[in-house]
Formats: sequence, structure tokens, C-alpha cells
Amino acid sequence: MNVFNVAFLGAGRMGLTHLRNLAGVPGVHVRVVADTGLAKAENGAALVRAERATDDIGAAIGASDVDAVLIATPTGTHAELIEQCVRAGKPVWCEKPVGLTLADTQRVLRTVERSNIPVMIGFMRRFDPGYAAAKRAIDAGDVGRVERFRAISCDFTPPALAFIKTSGGIFVDMSVHDFDLARFLVGDVAEVSAWGGALIDPGYAEVGDVDTAVAMLRFANGALGVLEASRRTTWGYDIRTEVAGSRAKLVVEAPQKTPLLTSRDLGYAGTHYESFPDRFEAAYRAELAYFFACLRAGELPEPGVRDALESLRVALAATRSLKEGRPVKVEEI
Amino acid sequence: MNVFNVAFLGAGRMGLTHLRNLAGVPGVHVRVVADTGLAKAENGAALVRAERATDDIGAAIGASDVDAVLIATPTGTHAELIEQCVRAGKPVWCEKPVGLTLADTQRVLRTVERSNIPVMIGFMRRFDPGYAAAKRAIDAGDVGRVERFRAISCDFTPPALAFIKTSGGIFVDMSVHDFDLARFLVGDVAEVSAWGGALIDPGYAEVGDVDTAVAMLRFANGALGVLEASRRTTWGYDIRTEVAGSRAKLVVEAPQKTPLLTSRDLGYAGTHYESFPDRFEAAYRAELAYFFACLRAGELPEPGVRDALESLRVALAATRSLKEGRPVKVEEI
Amino acid sequence: MNVFNVAFLGAGRMGLTHLRNLAGVPGVHVRVVADTGLAKAENGAALVRAERATDDIGAAIGASDVDAVLIATPTGTHAELIEQCVRAGKPVWCEKPVGLTLADTQRVLRTVERSNIPVMIGFMRRFDPGYAAAKRAIDAGDVGRVERFRAISCDFTPPALAFIKTSGGIFVDMSVHDFDLARFLVGDVAEVSAWGGALIDPGYAEVGDVDTAVAMLRFANGALGVLEASRRTTWGYDIRTEVAGSRAKLVVEAPQKTPLLTSRDLGYAGTHYESFPDRFEAAYRAELAYFFACLRAGELPEPGVRDALESLRVALAATRSLKEGRPVKVEEI
Amino acid sequence: MNVFNVAFLGAGRMGLTHLRNLAGVPGVHVRVVADTGLAKAENGAALVRAERATDDIGAAIGASDVDAVLIATPTGTHAELIEQCVRAGKPVWCEKPVGLTLADTQRVLRTVERSNIPVMIGFMRRFDPGYAAAKRAIDAGDVGRVERFRAISCDFTPPALAFIKTSGGIFVDMSVHDFDLARFLVGDVAEVSAWGGALIDPGYAEVGDVDTAVAMLRFANGALGVLEASRRTTWGYDIRTEVAGSRAKLVVEAPQKTPLLTSRDLGYAGTHYESFPDRFEAAYRAELAYFFACLRAGELPEPGVRDALESLRVALAATRSLKEGRPVKVEEI
Repeated sequence: MNVFNVAFLGAGRMGLTHLRNLAGVPGVHVRVVADTGLAKAENGAALVRAERATDDIGAAIGASDVDAVLIATPTGTHAELIEQCVRAGKPVWCEKPVGLTLADTQRVLRTVERSNIPVMIGFMRRFDPGYAAAKRAIDAGDVGRVERFRAISCDFTPPALAFIKTSGGIFVDMSVHDFDLARFLVGDVAEVSAWGGALIDPGYAEVGDVDTAVAMLRFANGALGVLEASRRTTWGYDIRTEVAGSRAKLVVEAPQKTPLLTSRDLGYAGTHYESFPDRFEAAYRAELAYFFACLRAGELPEPGVRDALESLRVALAATRSLKEGRPVKVEEI
Repeated sequence: MNVFNVAFLGAGRMGLTHLRNLAGVPGVHVRVVADTGLAKAENGAALVRAERATDDIGAAIGASDVDAVLIATPTGTHAELIEQCVRAGKPVWCEKPVGLTLADTQRVLRTVERSNIPVMIGFMRRFDPGYAAAKRAIDAGDVGRVERFRAISCDFTPPALAFIKTSGGIFVDMSVHDFDLARFLVGDVAEVSAWGGALIDPGYAEVGDVDTAVAMLRFANGALGVLEASRRTTWGYDIRTEVAGSRAKLVVEAPQKTPLLTSRDLGYAGTHYESFPDRFEAAYRAELAYFFACLRAGELPEPGVRDALESLRVALAATRSLKEGRPVKVEEI
Repeated sequence: MNVFNVAFLGAGRMGLTHLRNLAGVPGVHVRVVADTGLAKAENGAALVRAERATDDIGAAIGASDVDAVLIATPTGTHAELIEQCVRAGKPVWCEKPVGLTLADTQRVLRTVERSNIPVMIGFMRRFDPGYAAAKRAIDAGDVGRVERFRAISCDFTPPALAFIKTSGGIFVDMSVHDFDLARFLVGDVAEVSAWGGALIDPGYAEVGDVDTAVAMLRFANGALGVLEASRRTTWGYDIRTEVAGSRAKLVVEAPQKTPLLTSRDLGYAGTHYESFPDRFEAAYRAELAYFFACLRAGELPEPGVRDALESLRVALAATRSLKEGRPVKVEEI
Repeated sequence: MNVFNVAFLGAGRMGLTHLRNLAGVPGVHVRVVADTGLAKAENGAALVRAERATDDIGAAIGASDVDAVLIATPTGTHAELIEQCVRAGKPVWCEKPVGLTLADTQRVLRTVERSNIPVMIGFMRRFDPGYAAAKRAIDAGDVGRVERFRAISCDFTPPALAFIKTSGGIFVDMSVHDFDLARFLVGDVAEVSAWGGALIDPGYAEVGDVDTAVAMLRFANGALGVLEASRRTTWGYDIRTEVAGSRAKLVVEAPQKTPLLTSRDLGYAGTHYESFPDRFEAAYRAELAYFFACLRAGELPEPGVRDALESLRVALAATRSLKEGRPVKVEEI
């Protein structure tokens, strides 16, 4: 088995998770960990026994002993770093999103499509065993014609308001994962209508965002959908996705985090997942394994920048609907 | 225990179910079963050993040995029969709806409110142990401030298109139960936005209706909701209701009809309910018991005609939104 | 539909439950409620508008306007009352058990079998939708050859020690239901080995009983089984039955009493049933309906006295095994 | 973080799984993979980029650049290899069992206890999030006094009869994991009574074993338990463990392998796990991480050889009970 030597960019919390997962992927060796904070880079490098750590990200990308680049840096840097990698001829796996604006994402898409360099964007949910099995069932015709879609994604712990200001809003920051699933499982979204409110914290309204939102989706193939999003629950990471068709209905939901039920006081209790890292632990491992399997097989990994662009477009349509109080066609965006 | 002697109107399929349930309510005796078809009336009367059967409905209502009237006749007759009972001074339990138009329902409401005669409308879901417990939890503050509501109600078997023409449309005929639950569990609905389509059978479009619909709800207290409805599934009666608040989330769903799981071929399988009569079997019994308990205690039973009116108003707002392609405020109706 | 006029004997707590259920069975009319306490008899009679109440049980059985007798009197009276009914030529439904000793039960069996009068014993679990569906699946061959059986039945609230003294012991009093299910679902039990202890309350040991017990079953067809019983839990009525075969496994368990899940604090919670009356509410109704359907069809209802005898025999074998510390073949009993 | 350099012995199917998991444990580097088949060793070495592969197992253990040894060789070699490692002063993690005979296991225990070298035996279930949480709950007193224990473990695919002959029998080969859990969660087992049969394949009887078994356990603290084991199911790996006490009941069971439910035809279906590698995927990773965390902290990892010895003793008592048809006290063994 030929070994891929990689540069890993961004050794923050999720970066370390990816590094640990990478260590379990056979045939991959991390040559260099780069982070603008050198201590973080060194910490990441030690974790996987990488040859070197650096705060010179450009040098890491360009290094002659690096075959591929993995990007887990802050969102604002993704577009520029992907382009840099592509120019250097290095295949890329990058955390979602490519960018928060359509213009940025379109520019990256053009660069990538001209190059034919493999670029995969980390919509990890597609690699969860539940979503992957749902996709296979739909493609196999087991669900028949899809008629309805339902997505709910609510976080347990709200982010700091400082982050909200630059997040792109609840649909671009959170629901984009659901829009990606909608496209993955059902197909193109034609129209969105959204409502929202600052029900949890009035601070969201002050920064022009909402903390609670609902939306309707109209798919190009006629299917209809609903979506819910919330920045905070008291019961854990609340994520459930349903696809109903003429033959069957699929529900993707992990019913309990720990395989333990406790009974007492005339009832029983189980545990919910806390957030995306624990709910999607297996998915994060699977997507990296898939990325390198594609490189090895000479295939273009998916989802790529075009998927990121199309999901962003839906998120922006929802955002505009929310602001303008009217249904918005995705083609307007 | 004083015994209530009742007249039972309408001995069709649901009428017989109610008659059987009535037989299990202590302190109630059916004196007369009335139906425009005398054979049906006699069949119903035999079932509960009622003294007499008749096709003269007016006589049954007016009979001097009748203390209360239960109405399970076709929808189009409800308004007129309720008014007749009220004029005769007889307490009424009547299957939902009061009427399919706002005018009819408002007229009945005026008659009822002037009279102070107890009139209960059969929104049986409120008496399901799950919904009743949800209501108690919300009233006790266990859920905190309600932020989100979700309802899905899909029938297993679609009705004949001939019925659809006179049904009032999917929101008035089917989702009105969900609008009643929305009001019961969360509070007044201020605005609705709805989309729909004839995805199952183009015949729905030909009669000006849809077979698949989604909607967003905005409650007067700021909470947001989503709703799904479908006339046909292949997997059974699909009904689930969620209420999420600042402290907890409630999910009302009966996970399986029969308490049996069968495992084979690397998987397991359970059964869904088929339709409202089996899913709400206990609720139908409970609502009749409650009605007579109220009469005995001298209390006005709920939900009454005003609830029916308000839920209808939401359903009509959804219908208008569907037709006009815009959000509709309930106060417009 | 011809109407069965019945005498109902025993208007205690379970008697009233049966009376209420009886009221919902079409074609059945309670003529007389009898109880050694006249006030209780009158209370029961009022509940179902029976013509009369009496403390003369013999008169009730013998009354010329009584077609069938239902017995819900204390256990110690069952054998004698069944025999009295059979001598009077009246079909009988009687709460389990027939008697606590083999001799009593055998005597009743002889009387019944000579007479050809229908006598049904109230092992209501067989009429639960879950157990009934399990039986149908096994009979249809869906499970293949049965290899393993597992039963657990634990009560929520322990009975008074005064009752324990005369109960016949944990296997005769509680597990006899599981032995009946074992025979119903798998077949004859050939051998039992049992262990027990007074783990909850040392008072059980003082009266020669145990409050916690386990057992192994060897069936005549070679299948093997395990059984657990406990007089007290803190989490509700704990009852689950499993049948595993060469083709499939069946698990009969009602996962939650109320169709409501509450999520909060990183977890979710549901409710357990409290005891047999709520867990088997539907079964109690179904068994009475079945009894009268058999009478109407001229068929002998099951389970009858022979089933009660055979299940008692297994329970006595378990009791002997517990006392003698060795496996006991059922044919020894 | 100091790095542990390890020798990995045995590159068969489970060996490769452990190697992949090891790759995800930070601070661990595989220096050498050894297997009596050199090609297998080389395959394993390539997987984790180990410096070298060898068929000289002794040399791998003794290598001066090896800090610790992981053993995943065939069962028959464990005892000897553990002793060799201990003599070489190298900490050991070894797949269960230490040996199939008491004598072998006792000899290894003496060697290990004299040495004070950390030796951990791979009873991986203890590291499953469900079992680990159950243990914490019991230790915290949440369950109260333990009264009952239930274990079921059934394999999906039966092993070849050739393996069965040398397996030590169903209790030593399969149920030893349940006996380990019994001791882990409840405490010492005092007595066992077991029954079994060749219900699936008469070949088991021919080699003096059974394919289906049940047992009762009596714990030193008075608690009682039941156990089921089977070599073959058609529905997947069937494993469920229950601990019931005076305050609560714990059920450890993974309800579905894939977080997806499919509804159709009036029912719904989910998936079971297929076998221990998929059910205990997380546990396998966790136990290796724990082993190195102990080494790093200077603590003795558990379970060790003494635990393996005691669980084997219970398994041998069950085996003797099965053969002799009587309850067997564990102290007899």
C-alpha cells in the first residue's frame, strides 16, 4: 500500500480530533502540522508523531514531501487555503464551509474545476452509517418517489454572541448541514420559506440573527420539506432526519448515546448525544478514510466545492426569506 | 350514582365504536339510538340493549326520558343537530367538526354560549394518555417557555376522491386535529404559511385540493412550529407531535401498536398503528367518560364549540395560505 | 344477536374491573352481582345496572335467568364455585387459579371433563395483543424450532406478608402466569430447577417463601428456558418474555405505558407500567369478549382447567426444586 | 508526551483490528509486528508503518527498543507468551483468555504477581460505554443492593466444529465474557447450575459440547442470576445484560447498529449488530487507550490475570454442572 504523506492545517479542538482519526487511517502519514500558533502545531504534531510542526502554513502546503493537505483552520481562511493547495497541485480535504459568501465559494469552485485536483468538503453527516444507509436505500428505489423531507438540528450549547456576529446566520452556520442532507437525499431545493425569532436570547436579534428558526422547502422534484433549528436545548444535540416516499419512510436518528437504560421510579431513562463530535464520531473517521480511498483509486471524492456552493445557496435563500418575510426561490440567489 | 339516559345519533362505523365505548362507562344508559337508516339504528340499539331505535332524530333528541345527546352523524348535520339539542336543553357531545365553514360554526357558538348548555366537541387526541400527560407537564412548567412545536399526521389509507371534494381540504379535514393540539399545548396561533401539492394522486389537484402539505406556524407567544400532512403512507398512521421548550422537550408518539418485536435476518421489526381508531382507542373511551364526569360534577366540558371555531380558523388560514401563496394571519379569517 | 344473561360473583377490586369490561362486551347482560358482602354486591350491580344484587352466591348461580357465571371471588373459593356452576349446567369463566393444590385442581378437572360444560380460566396474558401475536407467529412456523425461552415477571408493590403465607409461594402465585406462557408458546415443561432467596424482606424466609427467584426450564421438545421473579421493584411492573428459535426471536414487552418521551438534562425518560391491571387492560377486555364469542359459537374456550392444572404442576415442581435444592422433573408432581 | 514503543504479536483478523485501533492511540508507536507467518507480520507492519516485521516472536518481545507487548496470537500461546514478556520485564496487554485450564492460568498468575509487571487481559466489554456506565452507577450506589443479574450472549454465525473441539466448551469459550461481567458488575459467583443441549447441530454433542445453554448463578452476596448462550442466531449478535437492585435496574443493550429505522407495510425495522467486532468497536479502542494511560500513570491496569482466573473458574464450574447434572460450587473448582 502506497503511503500518503499529508500536511495538516489547523490544530484547534476539531483539528486534534481529525488528527487522532487520521492516525487510525492505514496508509496515511502526517508529515507536518501547521498552525498560526506554533505551540498548537507542535501539540498536534506530537499527537501523531509528525516529522515537523510549523506556523508557516504556506510552507506546509508547498512542501515537496507532502502529497495531500487537510484543512481544519478557522472558516474565514478556507477559501484562500483551498486555492493555494490547488495551485500547488495538492489534493485537499477541507472542513465545511468553503466560505460564507457566494462570491468566495464560486471563485474557489472555478479554481478547483479548472484544475481537476480532488477537493472534498467535510459534510461529515453523509458518512454517518445512518445517512449513508438512507442514501443507499433511496438510490435503490426502496423509498419510491420522495414526497416529504424533515430535518431538525438543534445544538445543546449556544455559541458566544461574538461568534454569532460573524457566523453568517443560523441557516448558513447550522442548517447548511441539513440543506446538504436535503440535496444528498432528496435532490435540488427550488424554493425556501423561513421564519425565525430570538426566543432564547434577545442578543441574537441585536446582531441581526435568530436563535430559533423554521423553514419549508420545495424541492425541484416536487417533494416538500420542513426544517427546524435552534441554538440551544437542555436535552442534548437534537438531530433527526426523515424522508418519506411512496414506498417507505426513513428516520435517521441515534436513539441513545450510551447503550444503557436505567429504570427507577416507574420510568426509565437513557442518554442523548451532546453535540456533533460525539454523534458523528464514526462519520468523522469514515470521511477521512473515504477521502484517501478515493485518492488511492484515482476517483474524485464527494461532496466537493459544487455541493458546498449549492447548499450555501439554499442557506442564503432561507436567510433572505427570513429577512424579507416571503418565500424565496433558490435561483434568485 | 345517578344514571344519565342518553340518545345516541348516528350508528355508522364510528357511531358503533362510540356505542361500545359508552357501554363501558358506568352510570350511562342509552335509551334510544337514532339514525336516518332504521336498520342501522336497530343494530346500534341491540349492541347496547337500548330501549328503542328510531329514524326520527328529532324525536330522539326531544324525548322526555333523554338527559343528554351524543352525535356521531355525518359532518354536514352537526351544526343543526347541536343547535336542536341546545334548544331542547340537552347537553351534547358531538364528533368534530361543528361545521366546515366559519359562519356555521360561529352561529352554533352563539347559540351555545347564550344557553349555557354543556357542549363538548370530540377532539379525542386531548384525551390520549400521551397528549394529556404532555399538557399536564406544560401547565406545570416542566417544559419552560415553549419555543418550537412540530406536528405530523399522515393517514395510511387515502379516502375516496368523492369525499375529498366535500371535505373542506386537507387542513380543515385532517390537520385541524393538529391545529387543535397546537392550541391545546402551546396557545393561540397567530400566522400560518402553507405549501402543498398533489404528489400522490393528480385527482386531488383536479378537485382543488392537495394530498401532501407542509406548513409553518407562528404562535401568539412567539413560538414557531412546523406541520406535515399526507393522505397516504405505506407504513401506517404516522402521527407524532413534539413540543420543545427552554427546559425540556416532549415527544408524543406511540412507538408500536403490538407489544412484540420480531428479530430475524440481522434486524428487528415492530408494528405501526393503522389509523386513528386503533391509535386513539383509549382516548375515545376516556373522552366519553370525561364528558359524563363533567355533567355529573356540573362542570363545562372542554374542548367546546369555541375551541372548534378557533382550530377551524387556523385551518382556514392555512388553506388560504396554500391557495394564495403567502403567509396568512389568523386574524384575517 | 342473542344476549347472554350472567351472574357475576365477587365484586372486589378486580371484580369491578371485570364488570366494567363486561359492560363493553356486546350481547352480554349482568342479571345479578353476588358477593358475601351485600354492599359490595350492590355497588357492583349499580355499576352495570344489573337487575339485582345478593349475598347468596348459590342462588345467583342457580337462578333460572342466568346463562353463564363469571367468578372473581377469592382464590380459595374457586374450585368449589366452579364445581357448583358445572353441576348447575352453567358455563364458567373464572379468575386463575383453580386452586393452589394439585388435588383440588384435579378434582375440578374431573368434574368439568365429565360434564362438557365450557369452563375457562383467566390466564389473561394469552389475550394480550403481543402474546397473541407471538403465538400466531410460532404456530405459523415463523420462529422455526424453538430453542430458548425467557420470562421475567416482577411486581412493583409487594403484597402484605399475611397474604404471602397463604399464597402458595412465589412460583404458584406469581410465576404460574409465566409457566402458562411457557406452555402456551413453547410446549410442555419436562423439568425445572429453581433457586430463591429472601433478598428484599427477611419476613419471606420466616413464612417459608422467597421474594426473589430464578429458575431453569427444560421443555419436552428439548428447548431450554430461564425465568426470573421478584416481589418488588422500584421501577414498575417488569415483565418481558422472549422466545428464540431457529428462524427468529420474539420479544413481548410493552416499552412504555404512556406514549410520551420527555427529554432534558442530556437524556430522555419514559414511563413503565405499574402492575398487571394497567399492563393487561386490553387483555382483560379481550378475554371476556373471547369467552362469550366461544359460547355463541358453541366452542370450548381455552385455557381451561387442564391448562391450569398443567401450569400449576410446573409451579409445584419449581417450588419443590427450590426447597430440595435439586432439579425436579414435572412428572414427579 | 513520552511515546511507548510496542511489539505487536499476532497479525490475524483481530490482530489487524487492534493494530488499526492502536494507530489511533496517541503516544504509541508499533516498532515491530511479529507473527509465525512472516507475510502476515509484514502486512500488519505496513498497516501501521512499523519499523519491522518478523516471524521470531521471542526476538520481538526481547527487543531493546520495545517498551510493551500486545498479544493477539492464538489462544493456546497466550500463557507462554505472557510469561515470556513478564520475564523480559515488559508490560503486557493480551487478548482473553490467559488459558483454557486452571493450571495454566494459575501458573501465569503466580509469575505475574511475583513480578509486579502490568498485565492486562482483554475483556473488552468492560470498556464499552454501556457497561462502563453501568459499573459507575452500581459503584455509586444508584442501583442499591443488587438482587438479580441476567446475561444473554448469542453469536450470529456458529464456528466450525473443528474449532469447537478445542474451544473449552461453550461456557469457557463464550460465556466467560458474561461471567467476567457478572463479577465486574455484581461480585464473586459462589455457585452455578447449568443445562445445555445440542439443539442447533448434533455435531456439538459428538464432540462433547452443547450449542445452547442456560445457567443460574448464585453470587456470594446473595444475588441470583440467569444466563443464556447460543452458538447461532438468525438475527445477529444477541447480547443484553441486566442488573436489578433495590433502587434501580440497568439494561445494557445497543438497540440498533445503524441509526436508521425504515417504515413500510404497517411496520418498521432496524438493524442488529452482527458480532462482537462491530458491537464492541468502541470498547476495543477504549481498552487499548486505557492500557497505555495506566502505563503512563504508573497504575496497574484491570482486568488482570486474577480476573481471568476467577472468570475461568466460574466457567469451569458451569461446565462441570452441565456434565454432572447438579449445581456446582465455584470453590469446588
